[in-house]
Amino acid sequence: MIIDPAFEVSPWSLREHELNLDLLPQSESVFALSNGHIGWRGNLDEGEPNGLPGSYLNGLHELHPLPYAEAGYGYPESGQTVINVTNGKLIRLLVDDEPFDLRYGTIRSHTRELDLRAGVLRRECEWVSPAGRAVRVRSTRLVSFQQRAVAAIAYEVEPLDDGEVRLVVQSELAANEEVPHAAGDPRVSAALESPLQPEEHAASGTRLRLVHSTTRSRLRVAAAADHRVQGPAGTTQVSADSGADVSRLTVTSVVKTGECLRLEKFVAYGWSATRSLPALRDQADAALVGAKDTGWQGLLDQQRAYLDDFWERADVEVDGDTEIQQAVRFALFHVLQVGARAEERALPAKGLTGSGYDGHTFWDAETFVLHMLCLTSPRAAAEVLRWRYNTLPAAKERARQLGFEGAAFPWRTINGEEASGYWPAGTAAFHINADIADAVVRYVAATGDEAFERDTGLELLVETARLWRSLGHHDHAGAFHIDGVTGPDEYSAISDDNVYTNLMAQGNLDAAADAAKRHPRHAAALGVTDEETAAWRDAAAAMTLPYNDDLGVHEQSAGYTRHQVWDFAGTDSANYPLMLHYPYFDLYRKQVVKQADLVLGMYLRGNAFTPEQKARNFAYYEPLTVRDSSLSAFGQAVIAAEVGHLQLAYDYIGESALIDLEDLENNARDGLHIAALAGTWTALVAGLGGMRMVDGGQSIGFAPKLPDALSRLAFRLLFRGRRLRVEVGRTSATYTMTGGGPLEVRHYETPFTLHPDKPEERDLPEFTHRPPPRQPPGRAPLRRRQQK
Amino acid sequence: MIIDPAFEVSPWSLREHELNLDLLPQSESVFALSNGHIGWRGNLDEGEPNGLPGSYLNGLHELHPLPYAEAGYGYPESGQTVINVTNGKLIRLLVDDEPFDLRYGTIRSHTRELDLRAGVLRRECEWVSPAGRAVRVRSTRLVSFQQRAVAAIAYEVEPLDDGEVRLVVQSELAANEEVPHAAGDPRVSAALESPLQPEEHAASGTRLRLVHSTTRSRLRVAAAADHRVQGPAGTTQVSADSGADVSRLTVTSVVKTGECLRLEKFVAYGWSATRSLPALRDQADAALVGAKDTGWQGLLDQQRAYLDDFWERADVEVDGDTEIQQAVRFALFHVLQVGARAEERALPAKGLTGSGYDGHTFWDAETFVLHMLCLTSPRAAAEVLRWRYNTLPAAKERARQLGFEGAAFPWRTINGEEASGYWPAGTAAFHINADIADAVVRYVAATGDEAFERDTGLELLVETARLWRSLGHHDHAGAFHIDGVTGPDEYSAISDDNVYTNLMAQGNLDAAADAAKRHPRHAAALGVTDEETAAWRDAAAAMTLPYNDDLGVHEQSAGYTRHQVWDFAGTDSANYPLMLHYPYFDLYRKQVVKQADLVLGMYLRGNAFTPEQKARNFAYYEPLTVRDSSLSAFGQAVIAAEVGHLQLAYDYIGESALIDLEDLENNARDGLHIAALAGTWTALVAGLGGMRMVDGGQSIGFAPKLPDALSRLAFRLLFRGRRLRVEVGRTSATYTMTGGGPLEVRHYETPFTLHPDKPEERDLPEFTHRPPPRQPPGRAPLRRRQQK
Repeated sequence: MIIDPAFEVSPWSLREHELNLDLLPQSESVFALSNGHIGWRGNLDEGEPNGLPGSYLNGLHELHPLPYAEAGYGYPESGQTVINVTNGKLIRLLVDDEPFDLRYGTIRSHTRELDLRAGVLRRECEWVSPAGRAVRVRSTRLVSFQQRAVAAIAYEVEPLDDGEVRLVVQSELAANEEVPHAAGDPRVSAALESPLQPEEHAASGTRLRLVHSTTRSRLRVAAAADHRVQGPAGTTQVSADSGADVSRLTVTSVVKTGECLRLEKFVAYGWSATRSLPALRDQADAALVGAKDTGWQGLLDQQRAYLDDFWERADVEVDGDTEIQQAVRFALFHVLQVGARAEERALPAKGLTGSGYDGHTFWDAETFVLHMLCLTSPRAAAEVLRWRYNTLPAAKERARQLGFEGAAFPWRTINGEEASGYWPAGTAAFHINADIADAVVRYVAATGDEAFERDTGLELLVETARLWRSLGHHDHAGAFHIDGVTGPDEYSAISDDNVYTNLMAQGNLDAAADAAKRHPRHAAALGVTDEETAAWRDAAAAMTLPYNDDLGVHEQSAGYTRHQVWDFAGTDSANYPLMLHYPYFDLYRKQVVKQADLVLGMYLRGNAFTPEQKARNFAYYEPLTVRDSSLSAFGQAVIAAEVGHLQLAYDYIGESALIDLEDLENNARDGLHIAALAGTWTALVAGLGGMRMVDGGQSIGFAPKLPDALSRLAFRLLFRGRRLRVEVGRTSATYTMTGGGPLEVRHYETPFTLHPDKPEERDLPEFTHRPPPRQPPGRAPLRRRQQK
Repeated sequence: MIIDPAFEVSPWSLREHELNLDLLPQSESVFALSNGHIGWRGNLDEGEPNGLPGSYLNGLHELHPLPYAEAGYGYPESGQTVINVTNGKLIRLLVDDEPFDLRYGTIRSHTRELDLRAGVLRRECEWVSPAGRAVRVRSTRLVSFQQRAVAAIAYEVEPLDDGEVRLVVQSELAANEEVPHAAGDPRVSAALESPLQPEEHAASGTRLRLVHSTTRSRLRVAAAADHRVQGPAGTTQVSADSGADVSRLTVTSVVKTGECLRLEKFVAYGWSATRSLPALRDQADAALVGAKDTGWQGLLDQQRAYLDDFWERADVEVDGDTEIQQAVRFALFHVLQVGARAEERALPAKGLTGSGYDGHTFWDAETFVLHMLCLTSPRAAAEVLRWRYNTLPAAKERARQLGFEGAAFPWRTINGEEASGYWPAGTAAFHINADIADAVVRYVAATGDEAFERDTGLELLVETARLWRSLGHHDHAGAFHIDGVTGPDEYSAISDDNVYTNLMAQGNLDAAADAAKRHPRHAAALGVTDEETAAWRDAAAAMTLPYNDDLGVHEQSAGYTRHQVWDFAGTDSANYPLMLHYPYFDLYRKQVVKQADLVLGMYLRGNAFTPEQKARNFAYYEPLTVRDSSLSAFGQAVIAAEVGHLQLAYDYIGESALIDLEDLENNARDGLHIAALAGTWTALVAGLGGMRMVDGGQSIGFAPKLPDALSRLAFRLLFRGRRLRVEVGRTSATYTMTGGGPLEVRHYETPFTLHPDKPEERDLPEFTHRPPPRQPPGRAPLRRRQQK
């Protein structure tokens, strides 16, 4: 955990002033740059020291066998893992023949800054070599949002003391870097040794190139670099050489005080499963030429323009809590980095910031990340769903293998094939299929993108509805049940009638029937008949939602509330997360909730509950919920705000927002918790802002409220082509809209019409506080715990 | 499946007249010899061809890492697997320099016979070499019941045609034989390559010796052999030589028609985790000297005497079905072979007849094998339970690791450590602990062995009762529940209140309290207090047994009868066993029973059900039970006979009895189904004989009945030091007792006193037939299916 206030609190940037080598792994994640296609961890330019060297290309993976002590039918045999690709950010420096290595010598000053408006990582370091030569190194790094295949670095060295210094700068492309092995924690990746097989290497002039391929997944990757070098005339010389795994530009120079050696490095990547070596080489070279042509300043300008537009439509302002203000912008920036240019690729749980979870995508993407993207970067949201659409053949094949109709999407995957090696928390978590369907519905509601619904969404809805219909069954009384599945709470598994799953499946079935009705010809082409849609509607209408009349609460799944309550009082705080200290056997059979499950359902399917049920359910489940997952706090925040616990909502917003900045889960080293970062947006916008889509997505409503600590909250979003801005003060909220025609909006259930550029102010009703529920001992919201 | 009538039907032996090379793997299992300590598969003397070369020493195993695609807390990391030890049965033959190999040349005649009274495997073969030389080979092989460390072979060769033949006989000890790899079926073993590291080898005179050790489990094994050679004087010469993995005696001789070359080979084994190489070497040599001193004929005489005593106390006679007659004696013989001299070792599921299930023991031993052994070879039964007792430290440690009190015995093991790599059907199957406790109770009931109860049984009962008390919990209404466990039916898992488990746990808790009451000082030494025994009794009294009032049947576990019924009609017969063709996910959540679960509970805890409940339960579960396990048919036979389906009971007896002789499950190659063989005895004695222990084990009762096909059934058993014989005719049963004082026995609930050597005859009541239930389509009893 990052206990020190490592990062300066600043509204538009993240800045560190000291280099703590112990926190390198975490800061590499926090300072990672990505555009959704390329990801560069915030490794120091010189490569070492490092926590985890990381350069990623979205979707580029290697396969490995999945082993089982006891095999079983339908177990996936091949795992997928993200690989650390050719490192294009490496720039080594020798100062009078001594390597610039911050583990040695003296650091006079050090800053790194992630600039959230410029979209660059800046670094400045003054260092004195063991032999006493002082230099200042400045670098600025970007991964271009505008030029998808391109990243670039500007690197400058100047001597600080009088006299001259002999510098050697080696700018490299390096493949098959040594990656540390981690063991014991299943959330870490399966690191593979030297996953890249060399195919071609070249170095000439200022240009470098390496082409490699993977062995089992048979993917080819090309990396190319070009440079602009500026140094003292006469003493500055450039040469290039290349080997199988390293292609290198070497710049030598003798630099006097007041002079500077400057290197601009342009890097381009390409990867493909099908394109030939020459084609891929040309692709990378072409991108490189484009980047060099744009030039360093041009890339900077493009980057800022891209981000200006983003902040214009997506910014969240928080007055009264500078930490949260910084954290939410940090969160928005990183979520944008994941989704911006993913383009028919998955959104990995860690984005492209680390190799945690093997680079897999889970339900997180659709359920959490897309909540934000649908309303802030809808094109990025559509791309994610198109990626799912493209993997339909694998999902249909998986359903067939399991004996079901329709499509069964993988619990975790890179390439669309199931890569989960533990079926009770993988295959059995069928809710992912309804989560994808829900994201389709939400995207269409937010955008009104009918072409997408017809061409992409419909088939996703139909095939997942088919899955649910064949997974569930009617009992003799006609009730529809979905048995033996695992809901979001991974401390329960293989349960009957999980309320979250059943509600999401219900929504899925209805949405499929609705979409089929809207697009009859396209539905017919998918083989949908009236009998089939009727069966979907019947199943949805008869869906079982277990309820304990004595307690007046829903059961997370059938029989849940009768189970023994976990012995929270007897559980040492060192024994969290519980899954690392107790067997699944015991967790599964007791009342202990890893992460919001029923509570999440009360957000996503809010209409299925009365306000009183929501309040009672929240009061019941809150003392059972330990939040051993980062996917929990923001959902709890939303419902806490809705049912009357505003301070608690605020505390959970803090936990979610600071999860990586303060490394609250002690694993930011493996990459950022993208879903929790996106969830911070949800907690603010849907929690404090009370934003809900209403009328089946035809309209949008708000129920804003502010916790005591905040004086103002303002957020922007896109809805049906309009840009909305909601500004919440202590007594009123002001709604502003630009673009499009008039829009009906709700303020606390009351509809009103919003006209372009005509702000509407509405008073906030008195907030009804309910007595706050307890959390399990020691499991109060993390930020609040720390402040104590 | 062995479709041909491979084995001649004969009441006291198993004989084959043809060598079917395709059936070698199965016949090697069927013809395996063992005394519970040494096991030799029925491999041909000359080693090849073979299906699976197998020589085993009970408990000798190697460790191997257990891999997981996704690790979890408490997952066993080290697996255990039985290894093929030094082969002492190998005798190669050259006939005029041509190897005697039945794949070549011409077989004029071939017989092998397992003699169930003599306890030997005899072979006679007339063979013509490719070059035209004809010889007769005769061998007789035994694994001594009396001399635990000893096996022996008499081997004779004689020329058949006129003239003389040059013979070379190589009698070997051979380690690290090549073992075929099998894949895909989890029931097969994890074959390890060359598991034995050479430590010493020697050959001198007629004596051979090899000492090896295992790498990870650090066990040492010594094998020694000595020989008596008789051949034509002058031409017969003997030499010996030795290498790391082969020690070899070579006999050369020129034999004329009417002459014979005869070799008697005595083999001794020893293994230990602690004894030094010299100590182990001496141990094997000493056993060898003892055997040679007894001599071949002496060993034969001892073997027959041992078996005469066994059959005198355990024989079952079946008139009217010669197949069943043969099969039940075959079964009794093999069960004896497993248990006879195991002596504080486990009883592996396959005995020492093959490497299936990695040589592990499961609940089979206590639940099924000990049913027979307690009443036929009680000393062997006690040894098994003493082995469990010796593993209490590991079981307590496992309970502690899992977070429970008492002892949690492993689901599968050789050395007492858990080796199950799939917890939903391993760790979660906690019923094994109650099964062990039940075996303790049954053994004490059958023998009245109070010293055993006090010194061994009590602690087993106490530690398992502690486990149950901490596994279960009371609900707010006071009912006691055991949640999230897996019962015997492995097509359900992680269920609440499995009736079988709860009933067995109830018995366990009560039995522990009872035993603690009988042995207060010893219980106190184990820390048992009055409060603790009261808590056990309370939990037992409040035990939940789910019951569906609408259907009038018990639920296998809570909610079970509400689940969807498996689509049996839509399941192709090629898709059995279901676990190889459907995911556990789908099996677990539907009504489909792999093996008797509730029905088994109705036998083991018969008093917990009314006769009507038994009949209704059987009628409900029978159409759901597919018997994809060999552990099912005999339990169904017992209850079928009790509730009024005598023909069905008889059909199930056939399935159980012929499971290996006809290879009904297509995996006899991996070893025999020892529990099913023991279950054949149970099906006959407890099913047709209606044998039950009554009055808490103080007495024994019978309710004999004969299916139409049988004219007579007679069985013997030991109870409280008396030898009982029950002979059942079509209209009456006759009870005879020898040894001990008068004994109260029940005939159909009516008690009467049986005096030594005074037979009592009782009429059989009219049997009330109920309409027979259906099995799932295509899952009628196997033997019946075949006869159709």
